[in-house]
Amino acid sequence: IDSRFPAMGTTIFTVMSKLAADCGAVNLSQGFPDFQADVSLFDAVHRHMCAGHNQYPPMTGMPALRQAIAGKVAALYGARVDADSEVTVTAGATQAIFTAIAACVRPGDEVIVFAPVYDSYVPAIETVGGTAVYAQLRFPAYAPDWDEVRALITPRTRMIIVNSPHNPTGALMSTVDLDELAKTVRGTDIVILSDEVYEHILFDGEAHASLCGHAELAARSIVVSSFGKTYHITGWKIGYVVAPAALMAEFRKVHQFNVFTVHTPSQLALAEYMQDASRHLGLAAFYQAKRDAFRALLAATPFELLPCRGTYFQLARYDRISDLPDRAFAEWLTREVGVAVIPVSAFQPDGRDDKVVRFCFAKREETLAAAAEKLMQAF
Amino acid sequence: IDSRFPAMGTTIFTVMSKLAADCGAVNLSQGFPDFQADVSLFDAVHRHMCAGHNQYPPMTGMPALRQAIAGKVAALYGARVDADSEVTVTAGATQAIFTAIAACVRPGDEVIVFAPVYDSYVPAIETVGGTAVYAQLRFPAYAPDWDEVRALITPRTRMIIVNSPHNPTGALMSTVDLDELAKTVRGTDIVILSDEVYEHILFDGEAHASLCGHAELAARSIVVSSFGKTYHITGWKIGYVVAPAALMAEFRKVHQFNVFTVHTPSQLALAEYMQDASRHLGLAAFYQAKRDAFRALLAATPFELLPCRGTYFQLARYDRISDLPDRAFAEWLTREVGVAVIPVSAFQPDGRDDKVVRFCFAKREETLAAAAEKLMQAF
Ligand SMILES: CSCCC(=O)C(=O)O
Ligand SMILES: CSCCC(=O)C(=O)O
Repeated sequence: IDSRFPAMGTTIFTVMSKLAADCGAVNLSQGFPDFQADVSLFDAVHRHMCAGHNQYPPMTGMPALRQAIAGKVAALYGARVDADSEVTVTAGATQAIFTAIAACVRPGDEVIVFAPVYDSYVPAIETVGGTAVYAQLRFPAYAPDWDEVRALITPRTRMIIVNSPHNPTGALMSTVDLDELAKTVRGTDIVILSDEVYEHILFDGEAHASLCGHAELAARSIVVSSFGKTYHITGWKIGYVVAPAALMAEFRKVHQFNVFTVHTPSQLALAEYMQDASRHLGLAAFYQAKRDAFRALLAATPFELLPCRGTYFQLARYDRISDLPDRAFAEWLTREVGVAVIPVSAFQPDGRDDKVVRFCFAKREETLAAAAEKLMQAF
Repeated sequence: IDSRFPAMGTTIFTVMSKLAADCGAVNLSQGFPDFQADVSLFDAVHRHMCAGHNQYPPMTGMPALRQAIAGKVAALYGARVDADSEVTVTAGATQAIFTAIAACVRPGDEVIVFAPVYDSYVPAIETVGGTAVYAQLRFPAYAPDWDEVRALITPRTRMIIVNSPHNPTGALMSTVDLDELAKTVRGTDIVILSDEVYEHILFDGEAHASLCGHAELAARSIVVSSFGKTYHITGWKIGYVVAPAALMAEFRKVHQFNVFTVHTPSQLALAEYMQDASRHLGLAAFYQAKRDAFRALLAATPFELLPCRGTYFQLARYDRISDLPDRAFAEWLTREVGVAVIPVSAFQPDGRDDKVVRFCFAKREETLAAAAEKLMQAF
């Protein structure tokens, strides 16, 4: 076989989750909750199935769900979004990101991404013949340097991908960052792809600076979010995209021939479930309690905990424990200590290694305690 | 917006289903059942949700479902398929096809397709920079001409896409066709993508010639199937791919960054449901009764019915009724007669028009009778 992608490996999440399972380690690597979602959501799916909603929904998603999404975006970010022409339901955020890139990026186009960079962006860019150009989010604050971004722009720059709250670092973009981004792209035809899947998971009272709420940016942005992260159903693989109509028309050109549509009864259940805003508004407090508990548990270990302002990931520096490169350290921790984590260098295309690993704290108290226990015993 | 795909329109299925809804027409256009799926499947999804199976499955699909698929392929086609390395669950067959093309086709590569051609293939090829090359299935038999195919092969030919039972024509490939195909690609590195989503819907006792069952071809084929067509759940968007391990490794490189995974609880429910083979083995008789009933109803109209050997689509020539091009005729039929159909020219990239429309008969008796009633009154 003449491989089209000879250098492409397997996503780090699959690698580490498999290693965790093989070793019987506590799996704090891949980001998913190990607690139950709301049973009322399951009952609603079943009810809609029994009512016969098992055939193709409209290509763009069920109208009720698109309306609920538009309503949420209006309520939270003050943005008027047309549910018909500016919202599309997707088979998870990953598919939304892949499709947005395929719809906008031509062979030879450049896309600016921030490293550490979520692991699907660059392969998606390369699959459609584009080239990733890297801006650095530098340890330990992982904040964008807009002058650096401006220096990277060329006539071939077609897209900039931003991600806030940021996976894996837990850093946030502020409204000042959005203004800088707007200034950076003013007068160009650069499209912004904004991965906001952790939009409801910000701590210490911080507000999410959605690109939906920044009128100048929203006019050229494809904003991606996820029900999996918000309602504890990562395995349902349902997300959505918000974009101005002309950009959405481009997105849908590819979407229709990629997955076409998404699980009908789950869409209907989610449309109902979204009506109670306390469900997504309560998420920040729910995860802040977990973050704080986990940080308190790890305080007794030699790990140096970095700030975590959003997402359900906690970065930790381990240089007081080991000299190993982070990939080797993560594997050792999984095998020998029994706690699986993600090495942050997996998100660094140049292999940069700050000796930092990522813990997922979207876990039950017992799970976090069991992991901490193992870490305390080891160190 | 500088469109990457300026010429790309909206899929004909969305166009006609929307027109049908707008006009209150009986919708025999887009292919989906209007009857209920099996409630035991819904109960199983609910049970797995309540048991906590709502998080990411393995990237390749739930092991139980992959094993059930491998078992079916062995039982029906006598092929030994490894459930771990040679089966992947996908977000429907459309996503499987898109991903297979993205994994194999480079800019400048040529892909041979047969026209009439299912409407997602060519846009998928063009999205990754490939070029579609057309072999003709000619009215009225719509049989492949292998000499024509051989004449189309160039050093740039990377893939041939076959589809049997064939949508929209209902034609079948025989084992003789498979031998011809094998002869055609022998000594080349051409990959075969085989869309077999109607594998269980063949009439009059005909056997499906799966590429899984043809050892020489199977060694270079990506075979796609669908649970939506088989279990009356087109809206669940779950399909799968079978391919030899080396080719599957290429498929998964793209799959992991496109949709990553598929609805966990539905996968578990399907794994159980597949255990009773009578469910897929009974499908042919189930649809043959519908085909025969529908053909009998239409016998009293001036439509000339073409042979239908498989799928749930019936082609009909309307030249005794109208001189309109088929697209205009389909719209007129939808608006004025109240029966929505698909114009077959939508599957003809060169716009060739045989004055043929496609009726979907995956419908309740009442629906088919209501459509026939309208047609009889009109003509
Ligand atoms: C798509 S699997 C990975 C889940 C995730 O977003 C993460 O762990 O960062
Ligand atoms: C993906 S919607 C179209 C369904 C279908 O396969 C058809 O109508 O031919």
